[in-house]
Amino acid sequence: MEKKNMLYEGKAKKVYETEDPEVLIVSYKDDATAFNGQKKGSITGKGVINNRMSNMLMKVLEQKGVPTHYIEELNDRETAVKRVKILPLEVIVRNISAGSFAKRYGVEEGIVFEHPTVEFSYKNDDLGDPLLNDDHVLALKLCDREELKTVRDYALKINDLLTEVWGRCGITLVDFKVEFGWLADHTIVLADEISPDTCRLWDSETGKKLDKDRFRRDLGDVEEAYTEVMGRLETIS
Amino acid sequence: MEKKNMLYEGKAKKVYETEDPEVLIVSYKDDATAFNGQKKGSITGKGVINNRMSNMLMKVLEQKGVPTHYIEELNDRETAVKRVKILPLEVIVRNISAGSFAKRYGVEEGIVFEHPTVEFSYKNDDLGDPLLNDDHVLALKLCDREELKTVRDYALKINDLLTEVWGRCGITLVDFKVEFGWLADHTIVLADEISPDTCRLWDSETGKKLDKDRFRRDLGDVEEAYTEVMGRLETIS
Repeated sequence: MEKKNMLYEGKAKKVYETEDPEVLIVSYKDDATAFNGQKKGSITGKGVINNRMSNMLMKVLEQKGVPTHYIEELNDRETAVKRVKILPLEVIVRNISAGSFAKRYGVEEGIVFEHPTVEFSYKNDDLGDPLLNDDHVLALKLCDREELKTVRDYALKINDLLTEVWGRCGITLVDFKVEFGWLADHTIVLADEISPDTCRLWDSETGKKLDKDRFRRDLGDVEEAYTEVMGRLETIS
Repeated sequence: MEKKNMLYEGKAKKVYETEDPEVLIVSYKDDATAFNGQKKGSITGKGVINNRMSNMLMKVLEQKGVPTHYIEELNDRETAVKRVKILPLEVIVRNISAGSFAKRYGVEEGIVFEHPTVEFSYKNDDLGDPLLNDDHVLALKLCDREELKTVRDYALKINDLLTEVWGRCGITLVDFKVEFGWLADHTIVLADEISPDTCRLWDSETGKKLDKDRFRRDLGDVEEAYTEVMGRLETIS
């Protein structure tokens, strides 16, 4: 499989067309940004880790009934995926208060919720990815009611499955962001990535942050945290 | 009935205790603020109009099965109401895109929604009244699931009833904000006010704004708009 025309270059990935119109190649970069692009940097080896980790986790989810865009890992940084049209929603599932939730509502980090919360934002950098409720999603016609239910159900199922996997690694899944896409036949599948860039992962014993917050908040040991998390995941696999 | 200790002075109202611990007196002011208090001014006669209009509309809602805090109009600016503990939610119902919705999602004003949208914000001036989805309301324990359903059902019923009343006045109800409160027995009732301060009201023929947006946006004829709306409501009553 060969990379053709580059379709898109994002903050952490490039996406290329291939000879098959329904197959794309994702190439993971070491670049990191935070706060809607205001903070920029690089995390050495991140692209390799995120590529491998995302693929391992997508395979687990696929086996457990969550359809994903994953096809095949091509090399250290590149993976073949099904071409999708991304739904214009960032889907965040939270088990514990942290990050933008804590800031927005003026509460401390670390409050364990009785039930997971699902949160949708409108994927639009110019508007700052504003929060949406279900009525807003429908009023803006971002997807229909049935699709919204599918997305929410998948998000909660992904949360259950990832909580279990990370739990076996001695890691608490605090929250995560996923994106979904439509295949050509309008089926909805999980797309984008699952990695320490998109999940908050706290060591279950010490509470140490093992995710991109180390970069966002200049906590140091960024590469070490990504490597640590990857190592633990490989140990249980 | 006599005003005792002043409990609270807000942007547009003062609230007093009375000799009955379950009865308060609301006194409507002419003061107007916008954009979370950043813009301040006065609309002559507004207090008298809002007092009368809110009471007329609360009586209609009460007759149609929506419980309210209204007890009795005492004079031009003052009304006796049931004492409530206000739920920490601003409840906004929108039929047409306008105001913060249009700005937040980068869409034009005037888009008619297929279904009314209900939106909750966390009543907290310091945090800028941040938007909440249902999961957030429950995670923050602002009320329980059953109360949230009650509030949503009342909000939609109020929308139906007010749309009908304003429609008979030749006025389109674009959106409105309401607040609810708990009585001592934990029953939920409509509280606060319903007026051109809290509703967007557009002339159905010309689209002319007949509400507080004339003040917010310096459109002129502010007092005239309030008087016009009040006059039309009295004509159909």
